[in-house]
Amino acid sequence: MIILGIDPGYAIVGFGVIEKTKNSTRVIDYGVIETDKSLKMSIRLNKIYDGIEYLIDKYKPDSFAIEELFFHTNQKTVINVAMARGVILLAATKKMGENKLYEYTPLQIKQALTGNGRAEKQQVQYMVKAILNLTKTPKPDDAADALAVALCHSQTNLILSNTDIK
Amino acid sequence: MIILGIDPGYAIVGFGVIEKTKNSTRVIDYGVIETDKSLKMSIRLNKIYDGIEYLIDKYKPDSFAIEELFFHTNQKTVINVAMARGVILLAATKKMGENKLYEYTPLQIKQALTGNGRAEKQQVQYMVKAILNLTKTPKPDDAADALAVALCHSQTNLILSNTDIK
Repeated sequence: MIILGIDPGYAIVGFGVIEKTKNSTRVIDYGVIETDKSLKMSIRLNKIYDGIEYLIDKYKPDSFAIEELFFHTNQKTVINVAMARGVILLAATKKMGENKLYEYTPLQIKQALTGNGRAEKQQVQYMVKAILNLTKTPKPDDAADALAVALCHSQTNLILSNTDIK
Repeated sequence: MIILGIDPGYAIVGFGVIEKTKNSTRVIDYGVIETDKSLKMSIRLNKIYDGIEYLIDKYKPDSFAIEELFFHTNQKTVINVAMARGVILLAATKKMGENKLYEYTPLQIKQALTGNGRAEKQQVQYMVKAILNLTKTPKPDDAADALAVALCHSQTNLILSNTDIK
């Protein structure tokens, strides 16, 4: 099963692609879609949409996992991040169908990777590196966060499978 | 010149279509795109995107005008409204090109229609009815607001033309 994980943003969208087989989880690719701040927001949204389409065409994921966005009173960029997230959800639904789309809260992601919903960012990144047998922590942080979302989906599904077996 | 005005939202998107000629401004159509709250957000975003595409195909507007969205600390629905707004901007840019896309603040809209940036909602709606020679105020409010955005674009362009002539 190939999983595409996305860390939403408007200046930088992180992505991580992993493959989960019966006995292993391996990284296929990770990186970012960047949009230049000199561009109008409408153009940046187009680039993000086209970038997500490109990733889905290239890696043909079976599942699409994305982090949920929460309202924080001091989060001044929330409108731009949410606009980008809307465009990402649209691209995923149009290309893959909404049944392959999964959303996870930051708490769920931390819990799945570290066993602690309040884990520090560094601990999550350490686990991304450990689970995927990487020699170093993926950079930038947005790409590492996207791999964490993909791994959260993979781990969550694993837990469900084990429960089903019992 | 045909102008499509949009009042962004995720449950209700208001739209208003007007035609501005040298001597007159007339209404062509107005209404709403509604998405049912029982649907997943990704499906609602798809319906909004498809609805905007449909309106652009049907009325072939020369300009697309949309209200800007601001961050208010108590606006709990801001993330969903912004996701919808991102999808609306994407549809407009993909169908019409970003040069035909115009964004106006609530202050600019009120100023253009009533001469007062702090006018009450009722005063704006009264002016929509008056300028377009309608027998009654357009309903629902989202459609009236969308017509106000379209009229703001029409009035703003008029003011620019007169300045150019001087």
